[in-house]
Order: sequence, then C-alpha cells, then structure tokens
Amino acid sequence: MRTRYSKTADNELNEYSKYIDSKEDLQLIINSNKSINLEIGMGKGEYISKMAHANPDKIYIGVEICKSVLALAAKKISRYEIQNDIKLNNLYIMAFDAIKINEFFNQNQIDILYLNFSDPWPKFKHEKRRLTHELFLAEYIKVLKKDGYIRIKTDNIKLFQYTLISMNNFGFKFEEVYLNLHQTDVENILTEYESKFCEKGPIYMLICKFN
Amino acid sequence: MRTRYSKTADNELNEYSKYIDSKEDLQLIINSNKSINLEIGMGKGEYISKMAHANPDKIYIGVEICKSVLALAAKKISRYEIQNDIKLNNLYIMAFDAIKINEFFNQNQIDILYLNFSDPWPKFKHEKRRLTHELFLAEYIKVLKKDGYIRIKTDNIKLFQYTLISMNNFGFKFEEVYLNLHQTDVENILTEYESKFCEKGPIYMLICKFN
Repeated sequence: MRTRYSKTADNELNEYSKYIDSKEDLQLIINSNKSINLEIGMGKGEYISKMAHANPDKIYIGVEICKSVLALAAKKISRYEIQNDIKLNNLYIMAFDAIKINEFFNQNQIDILYLNFSDPWPKFKHEKRRLTHELFLAEYIKVLKKDGYIRIKTDNIKLFQYTLISMNNFGFKFEEVYLNLHQTDVENILTEYESKFCEKGPIYMLICKFN
Repeated sequence: MRTRYSKTADNELNEYSKYIDSKEDLQLIINSNKSINLEIGMGKGEYISKMAHANPDKIYIGVEICKSVLALAAKKISRYEIQNDIKLNNLYIMAFDAIKINEFFNQNQIDILYLNFSDPWPKFKHEKRRLTHELFLAEYIKVLKKDGYIRIKTDNIKLFQYTLISMNNFGFKFEEVYLNLHQTDVENILTEYESKFCEKGPIYMLICKFN
C-alpha cells in the first residue's frame, strides 16, 4: 500500500518536533531504556496522547501510514497539549507502512503494540491489508520484546473474529479476551471514536503474547 | 463431581433401548465405521435428536452427567420420535462425567465433539468444572480423531471468553469463530433454550481442531 503523498503534510511534519523519520533518530529515543509503547494506525492520535499524558515515564510512538492523517494528528496533539497545559515529551509520531516496522525497530524493542480500531478491510481480496494478517504478525513478533504483548481493540465484529483466528493460528498465546469491554471494569482510555461506536454494539479486546 | 443417584431414573434408563452403560456396548456401535458425533452435556436431548434426525448416516451419542436429566431426555427423545413418526436408530445416550470419557472411548474415535450451552460455572472456585477447562481438554484430545474437531456454542459471554483463552492456551487451532451466530448464515440447529436466549444477547460459536 502506498503512503499518500502530500507536500503540505510533509512540510508540516518536518517542522514538528515529535516527528521522527529515520531509524537513527528513533534508536536514540529507544536507547533511553524506558518502556516502549507503539500504536499502529494512530489516526488522529487521541488515544496515544491520553496514554502518554497518563504515563509520563513511558515512551509512546504513534504510527500512521498516511502523512496527511499524521499531519492532522500533529495538530490535534498540539491542541491537546495546550488544552491540558502540558508538554508530552514522551510522545513521538512516525509515518510508515506497518509491514516495514523492521526497517525502523531492531529486534526485541517494543513492550506493547497497540492496534486500536484498525481498518477492517472487509473484502476478502484486501485480507492482506488487515493489520492482524499473518504477514504483519510475522513482522511484529520480531520487534516485540520476549515478554511484550499486543493489545487489540475494535468495534468491528468480523475483524475481531478474523483476528482471533489469525492470532491463534500464528501461535499467539491469549492472555485476556473481552467480548464487551464496556461491561467490564478493565481500565480503558476512551476516544471520541470509541465513545460513538460503543453505543452501536460491543467493543472487543484481545491481549496476547507470542512466547 | 458425583453423578446424582436416582433409583427411578436408573430403572427407566435400563429399560431404554438407546441407553448404553458399558464400554463394550459402546464399542460395538463405534465399530460400525460411521461418523461418531458426541454431545457432552446433552440436557434434554433436543439438539442431538434433531441432529440425528437430519443426519441418519452418522452416529450420535449424547452424554449427561446426571441420570435424572438423562431419564428426562429419554422421554423427550421418545416423544420426538412419535411426533415425527421416526425411529432414531443412530442415536444413543450415556451417563458419565466427561472427565471419564477415556473410560468409554478408545483413542482416535470421535469425529465431532459438541459442547452446547454448557454450565458456565461462573465462580472461580468452580473453574475446574467448566467443560473447557484444560483438565477436560486433555481428555478430549485423546478420543478425538486426528482430523476431528470440537464445536462449542454458548450464550454465556464469560464462559466464551474463558473458552477462547483456554482452548488457545492448550494448543487448539481455531477454524471458525462467530461472535453473533444468529447474524450469520452458518447452518444452525435451534433448540428451545437457544431460541429463548438469543433474544437476550449474541450466541457465540467456536470450531477448533487440535492438530
């Protein structure tokens, strides 16, 4: 899948202090020895902003394939900082296709990988684009720490059914499964999207490890 | 868990032609070379009666831990036969605790093992009684054929969450998962219980293999 090109977005991101576009710069951050938490498909960045705010001792890195979306996220994060009168010095954003995660991360570097409300790609011909397709899983397991885990949240029933089968068949060990997250007392950071969609049906969650 | 003893139920079952109480008699049936389908926790036998009716070339064996419930099932099956003017010559019933399945079946004998609306045993102290606890799974895999599978259906969200984790952790390979069975076109034989409970929430299904 091609990252859509936008010159404006490119310029905006290059001026944004939290934007990282090279493995070298990323590795400088990772070498800080803090817990590394990655969200793939961060969208407008509401979830990762709130997580970074709530956990100042951990590093959060948000990834989006589309630079235009990432540039929008950059603005939203800045607005979030102003509204809350904070600086999220532990939050970074990157633009790349998740299949290329190993071009930026070394093996055994990520503590938690978040997949929140990923694009369901409902058509079978687009199966390989789903972020829980085995092609992606094969890349994730290389960068996950030995005791690291993947935390998946979605409102899409078909994507979640697919994900349960895909992660199981790949060899992931399920730690926690919630088929109606909002009816549990599991700690959950709500985004605008989740607030809107939880009224239409259940929110699903899977937490799993590879080892 | 002790099978509740009822002299009346005992007498009734002993006079019932479909009732099997020894490994020897069971093995005579299995040796017929037909597909062997087992339902553990058959309750009143509605599901297995309909399945046996729909698939006369396959053998169906219903198991209940409680002889009183089994005696009731025997009556219901007889009534089903009269109502439909048939003889279900491919249907048998047995009374034993599922943990003892290997005392009746040899290895590699069962094509499909059905667990329908099993008792959820919601309290943690009763976890070991859940029919998808690893203690049971360890017994099931011995009697399942190499390409046999387990087919689980429930309306209980917590039991299904538990089951997904338990079956995954044990090493079962998920083939199909449905988080709202009645919104799919998957073939499904409805019982009175399922008709009643599907209005209150989703019916969940998991189909999985061990090899």
